[in-house]
Amino acid sequence: MELWVKEIHQDKTGLSFKVKQTLFSGKSAFQQVDIIETIGLGRILLNDGVFMFSQADEFIYHEMMAHIPIFTHPCPKNVLIIGGGDGGAAREVLKHQSVERVVMVEIDEMVVNACREYLPTLSCALNHPKLDLKIGDGVDYAATTKERFDVILVDSTDPVGSAEPLFNADFYRNTARILSDDGILITQAESPFYDSDVQRMMLANQRAFFKKLHLYLFPTLTYPGGLWGFGFASKKYSPIRDFNSERVKTSGLSCQYYNADIHCSAFVLPTFIADNLKGIIDPL
Amino acid sequence: MELWVKEIHQDKTGLSFKVKQTLFSGKSAFQQVDIIETIGLGRILLNDGVFMFSQADEFIYHEMMAHIPIFTHPCPKNVLIIGGGDGGAAREVLKHQSVERVVMVEIDEMVVNACREYLPTLSCALNHPKLDLKIGDGVDYAATTKERFDVILVDSTDPVGSAEPLFNADFYRNTARILSDDGILITQAESPFYDSDVQRMMLANQRAFFKKLHLYLFPTLTYPGGLWGFGFASKKYSPIRDFNSERVKTSGLSCQYYNADIHCSAFVLPTFIADNLKGIIDPL
Repeated sequence: MELWVKEIHQDKTGLSFKVKQTLFSGKSAFQQVDIIETIGLGRILLNDGVFMFSQADEFIYHEMMAHIPIFTHPCPKNVLIIGGGDGGAAREVLKHQSVERVVMVEIDEMVVNACREYLPTLSCALNHPKLDLKIGDGVDYAATTKERFDVILVDSTDPVGSAEPLFNADFYRNTARILSDDGILITQAESPFYDSDVQRMMLANQRAFFKKLHLYLFPTLTYPGGLWGFGFASKKYSPIRDFNSERVKTSGLSCQYYNADIHCSAFVLPTFIADNLKGIIDPL
Repeated sequence: MELWVKEIHQDKTGLSFKVKQTLFSGKSAFQQVDIIETIGLGRILLNDGVFMFSQADEFIYHEMMAHIPIFTHPCPKNVLIIGGGDGGAAREVLKHQSVERVVMVEIDEMVVNACREYLPTLSCALNHPKLDLKIGDGVDYAATTKERFDVILVDSTDPVGSAEPLFNADFYRNTARILSDDGILITQAESPFYDSDVQRMMLANQRAFFKKLHLYLFPTLTYPGGLWGFGFASKKYSPIRDFNSERVKTSGLSCQYYNADIHCSAFVLPTFIADNLKGIIDPL
């Protein structure tokens, strides 16, 4: 018998992986959570049947989410991660010596516990002494906290269910409120092929609250279309003009995907993607 | 009833598209040829069940294959396309006024005829007066022709069956022989995720015959992993240092993916891909 797991996107395209075994299946108050062992890509986390990441390529998503803002900001000390219960984003953030405190607000404790048990290469950072892990709603946290952060990472699922408010103007207004005056916000920004309307909408929703707004791109093996975006929004910094590549070279950090040249090239947009965001994002 | 077409890669991963109808199915001396109409990506060509391209995103592959070498070479007049029977690469090449003659050597006439009938947005260039379309084996042509070319595009399928010799040192020696002294060779270079060994092997096979050797990257909706490579080999030119971006801006050419900034950023490699090709390709 052959087992395959499949995700259908927009009733148009499907992505499937051959499965060795199911390691975890549970239903939380928020979603169905599964972890499977695949033949080709190691372990994969699924929320509500949607692939979140694979062990084989999660380094791309997490390196690109964390190191782009942290190497742009001259000295980020306080970092907030909204979502990211698997621990991958925190793992990358905590590689930076300048970071003194990471608050992570994950809505679904089942994701955290399942990843602690079955995905130790991601969840290894979840017990780090600098990490303050809160189980709760990131939207409420951004609306009510008195803390301020140099970098905020929104490591969210797609804009459905509990993640839907993470794409709205109210939420972005609150992230701007709790960002320091030179803070940087990174947001999971969907597919430039299949979700170009969502990409435009969410960046348009950010525009009013940030002086600098950009999209950057990276590949993924587990998301439809294979090319994915992160939003980069800042009250002060340009990701290219304020980036000092020497800091990457002298950091001692060794990455599998990210490097100082990729930092810059990731922001270069193909014409059809730039056209879709014309008038919303800034020129480089 | 729902119809889906699926391609399995390396018995690990599958990519599938929802199908409206089958437009063409035939078996040539070389391969099974199918053209389908999908719900999401327009029409798709399959050779032996492997997705060749979709109408929705073929512009990326064909623009990146043609415009990178043609805008690097200062005045390309003679272009050879090996494979490319759909016409997409020829269509992009023939947008350049400097090009006086395009020889296309496609092994499978069934591909040409099926694309003429069902994929007119690609095959539109196949009757161009500057195009000399030859039905034959590109490997033999490269070994025997007396002509020389400024640019050679190897628009091939994967290294199996009739396309397998297109990845060997003998073939690259012959392409170097029929390239002008400042000529550029572009080769379809597979997936940096799933075929990193093939990528290393084919570029190592090119190394001895070219002064400059690089890999560049682009996304695709129909190939496994979503990120794909082209080899750039030249007897003289660096794709970055010898590239004059003004030529793009003054060309009047309007592309959907390619632009002068993408020309350069496509050659920037993530660390794991650069590591895989260390000692084979040149620094930028």
